[in-house]
Amino acid sequence: MSIISIERKVLEKNDEIAQKNRELFKKNNIFTINIVSSPGSGKTSLLERTIEVLKGKINIAVIEGDVQTDFDAKRVEKYDVPVVQIVTNGGCHLDAKLVSDALANMDLNGINLFVIENVGNLVCPAGYDLGEDLKVVLLSTTEGDDKPLKYPKMFRNASILIINKIDLLPYVNCNIELLKKNALQINPSLEIFETSCTSGEGIDNWCNWIVKHIK
Amino acid sequence: MSIISIERKVLEKNDEIAQKNRELFKKNNIFTINIVSSPGSGKTSLLERTIEVLKGKINIAVIEGDVQTDFDAKRVEKYDVPVVQIVTNGGCHLDAKLVSDALANMDLNGINLFVIENVGNLVCPAGYDLGEDLKVVLLSTTEGDDKPLKYPKMFRNASILIINKIDLLPYVNCNIELLKKNALQINPSLEIFETSCTSGEGIDNWCNWIVKHIK
Repeated sequence: MSIISIERKVLEKNDEIAQKNRELFKKNNIFTINIVSSPGSGKTSLLERTIEVLKGKINIAVIEGDVQTDFDAKRVEKYDVPVVQIVTNGGCHLDAKLVSDALANMDLNGINLFVIENVGNLVCPAGYDLGEDLKVVLLSTTEGDDKPLKYPKMFRNASILIINKIDLLPYVNCNIELLKKNALQINPSLEIFETSCTSGEGIDNWCNWIVKHIK
Repeated sequence: MSIISIERKVLEKNDEIAQKNRELFKKNNIFTINIVSSPGSGKTSLLERTIEVLKGKINIAVIEGDVQTDFDAKRVEKYDVPVVQIVTNGGCHLDAKLVSDALANMDLNGINLFVIENVGNLVCPAGYDLGEDLKVVLLSTTEGDDKPLKYPKMFRNASILIINKIDLLPYVNCNIELLKKNALQINPSLEIFETSCTSGEGIDNWCNWIVKHIK
């Protein structure tokens, strides 16, 4: 038995569980997004800004994935939305089984939007279906305009690209038009948003898009 | 045969090859660093600034590790130093075998400093010894002051922390004293540098440190 065949089995098993997660979300009419990015691109900040805008309009639940600590769950908990923290304890991505175990502890009744914030890693989470409707990849302007070409799998597997920290554009070496061109070269069907979680710019556009997709 | 035992075998095999790489570096009196960070923290920019300061004083050779593209090798090649690009083709970290294969194509004669720039990933490269003298972890101020606590293995396994993009401190939500405190909580023996590859601040300190460690 080779390592490759074991890896395939692991991914097949993951896809089976992801499909069950997907059916559970569907049965409950829940729109689910899996947010992926490098560490520090602003996943949790985006989630905070999103909850601020949408709270009272739709019901949101959250899974936070982290290698260590429950810092992110504590940040989200302040907004009084249901949140479960998954600590992977060194693991570099969430998988469908971890999400399934977390879902077993959550009441999905009445939830419209489910957000899974993945571990900060622009490589490994690309390969793991969690049962989401779509992947949202976040990229900070500080990371540079070449990243879609250097980490193509994540941009290929995502449906949405959010370019965050646009308030820092005057201070960093990032050509946002080139960034968008590079992203669309990898995945021509990517829908792109530009946001700043500091100034709030672009957050309304992003939230309007979510509201349109609520089932 | 369980997956865990296979993983252990993979790491044991990696450590064996890493030891051979280490002996090769030692035999040639080469000081070797393995630079690790998230995507876009500034590994290649730091390397460019370092080469600019040290070229003519010491002989530098480079291995560039990337998931895709040879952009980074092309950036380094302009400085007329020997460089080999390893494209992992989706792989989330360099391993000792990849480095060993690259070394087979390089002339180490007269080299004083060998820099291995790892794949942009703050999780997976932490577990892989490549045969380096030490790991240098780079963290950008834009990534936030909580990252050492959230990704502890990388900070535990590194000897040097370089806090990069300090020119952006006025514009980002990052308390650099807290960042250093968090890093030292994980690894009290970390030596810390602060740099900006844009303004050049701190680059001389870092280069002086390298020169002191040349064998």
